Amino acid sequence: MKTLAQKILDAHLVSGRAQAGEQVEIKMDQTLTQDATGTMAYMQLEAMGVDQVKTELSVSYVDHNTLQSGYMNADDHAYLQSVAAKHGVYFSKAGNGICHQLHLERFAKPGKTLIGSDSHTPTGGAMAMIAIGAGGLDVAKAMAGIPYRIPYPKIVEVRLTGELGHGVSAKDIILELLRLQSVKGGVGRIYEYTGPGVKTLSVYQRATITNMGAELGATTSVFPSDEITREFLKRQQREQDYVPLEADEGAVYDATIEIDLSALKPAAACPNSPDNIQAVEALQGKKVDQVAIGSCTNSGYEDLMKVAAILKGRKIAENVSLVISPGSRQVMRKLIQNGAFATFVDAGARILECTCGPCIGMGQSPKSEGVSLRTFNRNFYGRSGTLSAEVYLVSPETAAASAITGVFTDPTTLDYEDTFAPEPSYVDDSLIYAPSKQPEQVEVQFGPNIKPLPINESLPTSFAKRVVIKLEDNITTDHIAPAGAKVLPYRSNIEKLSTFVFENNKKDFYKVCAEHGGGVIVAGENYGQGSSREHAALAPMYLGVKAVVAKSFARIHLANLINFGIIPFVFADKADYDAIDDLDELVFEDVHGLETGADYAIYNKTKARRIPVRAQISPADFAILKAGGALNYIRNAQKTNS
Amino acid sequence: MKTLAQKILDAHLVSGRAQAGEQVEIKMDQTLTQDATGTMAYMQLEAMGVDQVKTELSVSYVDHNTLQSGYMNADDHAYLQSVAAKHGVYFSKAGNGICHQLHLERFAKPGKTLIGSDSHTPTGGAMAMIAIGAGGLDVAKAMAGIPYRIPYPKIVEVRLTGELGHGVSAKDIILELLRLQSVKGGVGRIYEYTGPGVKTLSVYQRATITNMGAELGATTSVFPSDEITREFLKRQQREQDYVPLEADEGAVYDATIEIDLSALKPAAACPNSPDNIQAVEALQGKKVDQVAIGSCTNSGYEDLMKVAAILKGRKIAENVSLVISPGSRQVMRKLIQNGAFATFVDAGARILECTCGPCIGMGQSPKSEGVSLRTFNRNFYGRSGTLSAEVYLVSPETAAASAITGVFTDPTTLDYEDTFAPEPSYVDDSLIYAPSKQPEQVEVQFGPNIKPLPINESLPTSFAKRVVIKLEDNITTDHIAPAGAKVLPYRSNIEKLSTFVFENNKKDFYKVCAEHGGGVIVAGENYGQGSSREHAALAPMYLGVKAVVAKSFARIHLANLINFGIIPFVFADKADYDAIDDLDELVFEDVHGLETGADYAIYNKTKARRIPVRAQISPADFAILKAGGALNYIRNAQKTNS
Repeated sequence: MKTLAQKILDAHLVSGRAQAGEQVEIKMDQTLTQDATGTMAYMQLEAMGVDQVKTELSVSYVDHNTLQSGYMNADDHAYLQSVAAKHGVYFSKAGNGICHQLHLERFAKPGKTLIGSDSHTPTGGAMAMIAIGAGGLDVAKAMAGIPYRIPYPKIVEVRLTGELGHGVSAKDIILELLRLQSVKGGVGRIYEYTGPGVKTLSVYQRATITNMGAELGATTSVFPSDEITREFLKRQQREQDYVPLEADEGAVYDATIEIDLSALKPAAACPNSPDNIQAVEALQGKKVDQVAIGSCTNSGYEDLMKVAAILKGRKIAENVSLVISPGSRQVMRKLIQNGAFATFVDAGARILECTCGPCIGMGQSPKSEGVSLRTFNRNFYGRSGTLSAEVYLVSPETAAASAITGVFTDPTTLDYEDTFAPEPSYVDDSLIYAPSKQPEQVEVQFGPNIKPLPINESLPTSFAKRVVIKLEDNITTDHIAPAGAKVLPYRSNIEKLSTFVFENNKKDFYKVCAEHGGGVIVAGENYGQGSSREHAALAPMYLGVKAVVAKSFARIHLANLINFGIIPFVFADKADYDAIDDLDELVFEDVHGLETGADYAIYNKTKARRIPVRAQISPADFAILKAGGALNYIRNAQKTNS
Repeated sequence: MKTLAQKILDAHLVSGRAQAGEQVEIKMDQTLTQDATGTMAYMQLEAMGVDQVKTELSVSYVDHNTLQSGYMNADDHAYLQSVAAKHGVYFSKAGNGICHQLHLERFAKPGKTLIGSDSHTPTGGAMAMIAIGAGGLDVAKAMAGIPYRIPYPKIVEVRLTGELGHGVSAKDIILELLRLQSVKGGVGRIYEYTGPGVKTLSVYQRATITNMGAELGATTSVFPSDEITREFLKRQQREQDYVPLEADEGAVYDATIEIDLSALKPAAACPNSPDNIQAVEALQGKKVDQVAIGSCTNSGYEDLMKVAAILKGRKIAENVSLVISPGSRQVMRKLIQNGAFATFVDAGARILECTCGPCIGMGQSPKSEGVSLRTFNRNFYGRSGTLSAEVYLVSPETAAASAITGVFTDPTTLDYEDTFAPEPSYVDDSLIYAPSKQPEQVEVQFGPNIKPLPINESLPTSFAKRVVIKLEDNITTDHIAPAGAKVLPYRSNIEKLSTFVFENNKKDFYKVCAEHGGGVIVAGENYGQGSSREHAALAPMYLGVKAVVAKSFARIHLANLINFGIIPFVFADKADYDAIDDLDELVFEDVHGLETGADYAIYNKTKARRIPVRAQISPADFAILKAGGALNYIRNAQKTNS
């Protein structure tokens, strides 16, 4: 008797034992990339010498860097289009939509595995996939046919009962789970949704939940595949992809959480963390400056139809700027057809491209000290582009209701039509290009912003480095390698990108690293949560960071550190966090001994004190670290084989 | 017997003689501003101590800085909304549309005068207005009730005969005029359109022509008000604003140009000047990377209906990125209603906000060395945000046809439906806010990006300064104070903006100025053509520039230099341009003597040589220069009066 997650994982098990915590290798059927992480992933694929991808399906989406303020974005797009054509990858052009929305519409298949270089790849779990976010190098490895290595996760049941009331949203379910579990509650876990409440949720609603499951720090989240899934696939004209899938009756979970949907109320994640939850009721009346609707969390057909139902016949408040970015061209096309789009325009909404947009700070930064309500998944400090802004994460219903009144408004208090026209069956793949049939004739286009991939040196036996920064708990990859309109254009240019590392924590961090010949990062709990960007490991590696010593790590970032040859240490005693200060000199003797798994201690030379730690690595990880990262490791193996 | 232009000018004459070249003062009925120039204009209005504007109508539009990459844009919008409410100005919110399109739709009136802080303000000439672009300070003065001072222009007749053929566009008419007249052909002139061809052109087509008349360097352009005008106003539900207006029979023009519309072919302005014209035929087959449709030149209902007719049932080429930005919400709403918008999406277009967007380098920069076809009005070097790109200005028909084929394509060779559904009567003013009825209660919002207006010192009697830059002919205000996504956010922050002055001509120009304690600019013909931005005078003033010595000046920039206390000199003998080199020290003795209009010479100390020049100023201008600019002058006058 297996859980749904176990069924899919076990069907893809290449090596290892299917038991929580054991290292296993999982075959990946599909991959996806987006443009902000994709350029690096494909450069790594090319560096591995892979001609044609070995997956069932690989797709390269363009949805992040679409403002094109300068030549850099368009150069990246041209590179991605050409490299995809050459190596057997489907390419979705800028303007076609957001990767997770598009993947759900056109490619997601129940029972399959998916790895994507975007932390919200778990969106695919809405379609009974094991869909995992990872660094670009792990996605490149999957494209090269190398299985994905993870500790076999614990499976936590989220049992849903009851039904959502008027004005309450799928977003409010995942916000409730974040309230209960926190942003580090999901580490090492898969959340599997069960219970009678599941049948009341559409695929779009499930996708909002699995998408934002990433904020729990979970490996992924998964819903069963049922008649609702079949209907969704049928509307996408690919019913043949349907397979019914659910947990065996009597399957045993590592834990169970119960949520009664009937009892939920509209919620908001308050600044600056997705788990800082309050009821919208409690915020009612607070003035709002901006409302932003869209992102991979809440930009599907149903989300926007609910927004239209609330905006219908109403106008936005004078003090509010409302922006709407539909999740895909297909979604936009249907809304144009049925009149919802006209309702947006009539209400006074600004229509943005079908992209990630303001969710990643790519435009629409609020005014100074502005209050911004967003249907997005992250409200990390500074992510909006305005450090002094207050960003709240809410449902589309709460967002639309508040846009009209100009203050926080509980949508359950608002009169509007809950039901709407069913989603029409409409498909348009004309901006998705199949790979070339003459790949040898495709010339890959390198614009001047695309710089060669930096490669790490192999691990020295011993080293002494200064602490170049000491950080608190819950540091996100947005802190390490900021996103936003200013920095994102340099994702293909690590030298330039590295000048922005930790810019909001320690200005000119890169100069500190240069001065001390690299260094060591010290951090609290859950270091590296958030986005999957491997740039948060790659740029510090470029700056000479050799190790991170933290109380605990977020999953994807831990893997990225190892991939780029940075040793992740955890404190044996968390209290020793206080025994290290900024600029202390730490000595790492005989790190090659870490292979044996023996006890290890760092020597703090400045404080003349030994600090017991544990390298959070497997023997396989050590081999990668020793080579100076996964790319070196793979190339060394290729040399040995040839 | 008067020309149409003379009729309107003379009805607004406050002082002076209605004779070409004579200084006259014209009463301004209406003003408009956009956000990139508006913040300064309203700060100047406030500095003049004006409570409520004295015009018949003043409107503040937001259409330039709408990407909002950082808090700066939204701070500006909040300032503009609040300052408009306080001082009797209508405010059009971000997302409502482009100022010239909106003004035409909602406010333009035959027979009225309009001054706007945007060089494309002459668009209003399509509705038989004298509509003039000027620096923000001149617009602020108009709002304060001060008449606008100009040399009475020459009136040039453009006599249109025949009718445009299939695939030939109003854009091709103005491109033909640019071919004939060049970018400096219009200095001191108003182009007045007459002849049987006028009756074949809609108000939108006329607007494309008057809009891009700015590229001729003209004071403005004007069409008669006739039944076509009445129909346009009727569809805008304001037929009451209609007045028939045309030249008297037998009116005498300073010159006449004949254009036979039947003989025209699709044209393109090639890199990097709007008068570098070639037939599209000659470019046929050249590969295209990007097509951008929109801007104040070509984003009206009819323009986009023609685009839809060409895109209908077709798909964009794989190598092309097509972006479309409608001119206003009204336009967008009508296109949604009649299916044209769906056609754009089906064809694969990326839909951008109803703003200036890529025309001012606000996003959508082409890839490196990319070829971009744009329906815009300017293709100055670097304006697209990609220095190495080739930008061509074409009609919507040429743009759409080329988007489909992926190469330059003459639309006359393409089969499509020339006629389309007549424009419906539809009005939505819900994003235009009337000024407050309790202005004293409105608090003006100053975000941290809005810095106080820098004020010049009064003119010293004598000074010696180094030549801080020596420039060729046709230097645009885009060279002096660049636009684009990187710089535009600092239009309310002159200190920061001044670091970008001449950045593509002389890197770190501001440091050169700092090193030499300001300086003098030396230039060729037509210095300061292009945009009306007064920042091109204000930022050099802030850097200590005291004089510009040029072969000739563009009209608006000349006025801006005087407004900010920089003396504009022209060479008595243009050959003396060669007698000055970069960093030469120039001595200006007794400049207060310029008042008398006596002969004047600069002493080039480095070359030990006198250079005869003429200050291109009137006695009234001299008074302004002496005070250190118009704001000082007005304040001094207020002090004297009180």
